[in-house]
Amino acid sequence: MGEKDYMEWFKKRLEYIKENKPLVHHITNFVVMNETANVTLCVGALPVMAHAREEVEEMVSLASALVINIGTLYPEMVESMLLAGKEANRRRIPVILDPVGAGATKYRTETAMNILHQVNVAVVRGNAGEVSTLAGYQAEVRGVESITHGEDMDRVSLELAARLGCVTAITGPVDYVSDGERVVTVHNGDALLGKVTGTGCMATTVIACFCASGEPYLEATAAGLSYFGVAGELAAEKAGPHPGSFHVQLYDALHSLDLDTLSSRARINLETI
Amino acid sequence: MGEKDYMEWFKKRLEYIKENKPLVHHITNFVVMNETANVTLCVGALPVMAHAREEVEEMVSLASALVINIGTLYPEMVESMLLAGKEANRRRIPVILDPVGAGATKYRTETAMNILHQVNVAVVRGNAGEVSTLAGYQAEVRGVESITHGEDMDRVSLELAARLGCVTAITGPVDYVSDGERVVTVHNGDALLGKVTGTGCMATTVIACFCASGEPYLEATAAGLSYFGVAGELAAEKAGPHPGSFHVQLYDALHSLDLDTLSSRARINLETI
Amino acid sequence: MGEKDYMEWFKKRLEYIKENKPLVHHITNFVVMNETANVTLCVGALPVMAHAREEVEEMVSLASALVINIGTLYPEMVESMLLAGKEANRRRIPVILDPVGAGATKYRTETAMNILHQVNVAVVRGNAGEVSTLAGYQAEVRGVESITHGEDMDRVSLELAARLGCVTAITGPVDYVSDGERVVTVHNGDALLGKVTGTGCMATTVIACFCASGEPYLEATAAGLSYFGVAGELAAEKAGPHPGSFHVQLYDALHSLDLDTLSSRARINLETI
Repeated sequence: MGEKDYMEWFKKRLEYIKENKPLVHHITNFVVMNETANVTLCVGALPVMAHAREEVEEMVSLASALVINIGTLYPEMVESMLLAGKEANRRRIPVILDPVGAGATKYRTETAMNILHQVNVAVVRGNAGEVSTLAGYQAEVRGVESITHGEDMDRVSLELAARLGCVTAITGPVDYVSDGERVVTVHNGDALLGKVTGTGCMATTVIACFCASGEPYLEATAAGLSYFGVAGELAAEKAGPHPGSFHVQLYDALHSLDLDTLSSRARINLETI
Repeated sequence: MGEKDYMEWFKKRLEYIKENKPLVHHITNFVVMNETANVTLCVGALPVMAHAREEVEEMVSLASALVINIGTLYPEMVESMLLAGKEANRRRIPVILDPVGAGATKYRTETAMNILHQVNVAVVRGNAGEVSTLAGYQAEVRGVESITHGEDMDRVSLELAARLGCVTAITGPVDYVSDGERVVTVHNGDALLGKVTGTGCMATTVIACFCASGEPYLEATAAGLSYFGVAGELAAEKAGPHPGSFHVQLYDALHSLDLDTLSSRARINLETI
Repeated sequence: MGEKDYMEWFKKRLEYIKENKPLVHHITNFVVMNETANVTLCVGALPVMAHAREEVEEMVSLASALVINIGTLYPEMVESMLLAGKEANRRRIPVILDPVGAGATKYRTETAMNILHQVNVAVVRGNAGEVSTLAGYQAEVRGVESITHGEDMDRVSLELAARLGCVTAITGPVDYVSDGERVVTVHNGDALLGKVTGTGCMATTVIACFCASGEPYLEATAAGLSYFGVAGELAAEKAGPHPGSFHVQLYDALHSLDLDTLSSRARINLETI
């Protein structure tokens, strides 16, 4: 897909979301439940937050995408993540995994790996440390993090995606999205996103909204990250350096972002490697 | 009660809340805990969020109303809802039930019905699908939803309230409140309320604040819905079509809404049937 | 430390936080998880919210301070609080306890006392009722609350701190901070802080950010309360009497509060007794 075709596809996906309002089931952390539900609504999809073992399989069967986010994990919630993830797989509903804090504790690392092992995940989104931990580089997290600032990040992201066997988004000042064969980079966003908690989780939610409109997930993931990043830029322009106001403006921008603004501001490099 | 008497009563109830700051105990979902606590404060009451089996009976005994909201239910929380609800009944504290998602999964439907069976609920607030599910129309949810757009909604709401045996508020563009004998309609609100997560839960909280001031609950429920709807209208006027800003303005409006504005904007039809 | 030396020390601590970004581990209530994470970021530190028994000891070992807040306690979370608190003690990481609602239910009172018994707490922050309950004055809560408006509050706070055996902050219109030997009072803040849920929890978080920069905790606690109070004053000046806007402005003020503004507005009385 060339750049022009991609932007057309991107716009059609956004229109699809606004018209069809796909349901995005989240099993996510308690810190961002409200925020990611609002992000889902702002993009045009519908959120549902449900994590009881008693209902997650039935709930995910109504959804068009499933977010699994381990930010405040505990055993019962992890059990529900596995049940919902497997049911999503049976129904070919894409699963988007956010391995929050993988590498920080053994419990997070092992849980994220276990999910990746038992569930066919469509997309993983995390920072360089989290993703490299998942790919088995626990001992080298700091080393890999330093790599992320070097010039080899294209190659690293490709290798990590190949190891994980799914679309992998490593987010930071530049986002690297790879399926193990290609690497797409996204150059949108603003430093203020680092001043509000849960913006990584929000990015994952926007990716899920785009994946809810169907394959290919590499392109959908890049679209979600660019959409979120442009909204961050617009919010920063309005809110100045103030994180509270920025947080409010971020929802406004996610909601009002139109196709023309998106076309002119999306900075997606489809042919990095 | 005529329309003029009702507005006088409405104002007195609001003054009562501001002066007495009744405690509203919430056992509610994790998505809206912060938001509904803030709504409670804005209206002038005091919130407490507590859901441990170990304390809910003692906590509810200090409260003037109990909100039971099943938005992110799980077995331990449901157990606490039943314990608190029964204790509230023993102490004649009104219980307001928000059956979030009833009809979407069996677990939600059965839990909401079980609460309604075991606890003497004063008010149920939900959308047409949730309320009709509770009344035993699971198989016809879509059908009933279509009815909601028809002209028979008055009669439907009356029948549903009669079946549930308590004050029943079916909210949407128009809110239908019935005790099975009368139907009161509320014509306040704004479409932006659909762009922020948890506004239904917030409406339930405002109803609870008014019920905390005492009976009759039919009138208190209509008062709460009108108060919330007018605040939504004022917020929309300030925030334009922007959901993040609207969300902020909604708290401001809930807090500053004065008796004169309320008198001139409340659109409550007391004699629908 | 004289007043001038103290302000120098205060500024250095703030610079230390901004430069070193200490990790503040929270085991806190579900109502304020998002809000206190954002407060931590605004002050310049890094938040992590984690409460699974499986990981809290490992997580706290990465942190520079631990917040234990019992606002929505339940048995598994309490177990994690004790595990994390003991590990923090082994590693000499300061533990800041917020006994939300102690005195309201037996479960809260006993849990807070149990934590205080089993964990070496560096700082307790609560209102007069909560702190006096912890000190064993359950039967006299209302009486002690009335004392808080009298002139003997200096002496009361000294006695309570001596009983609790740690730095004790009793917050209200004036904050009383004592280690049992000295009393420091802080005269910052705004009445609007009472109109937003969780501002007490936020104050505890700011105290933890300052304690994360090291001892002495009496001075660090006063610094945190003054920092938070000045931010509240600045936010109130911008937001007028509107709690929704005030809440947003509070984050902005916590983020942008500079050393000069702090110097001119901090009202800390170091030599109350």
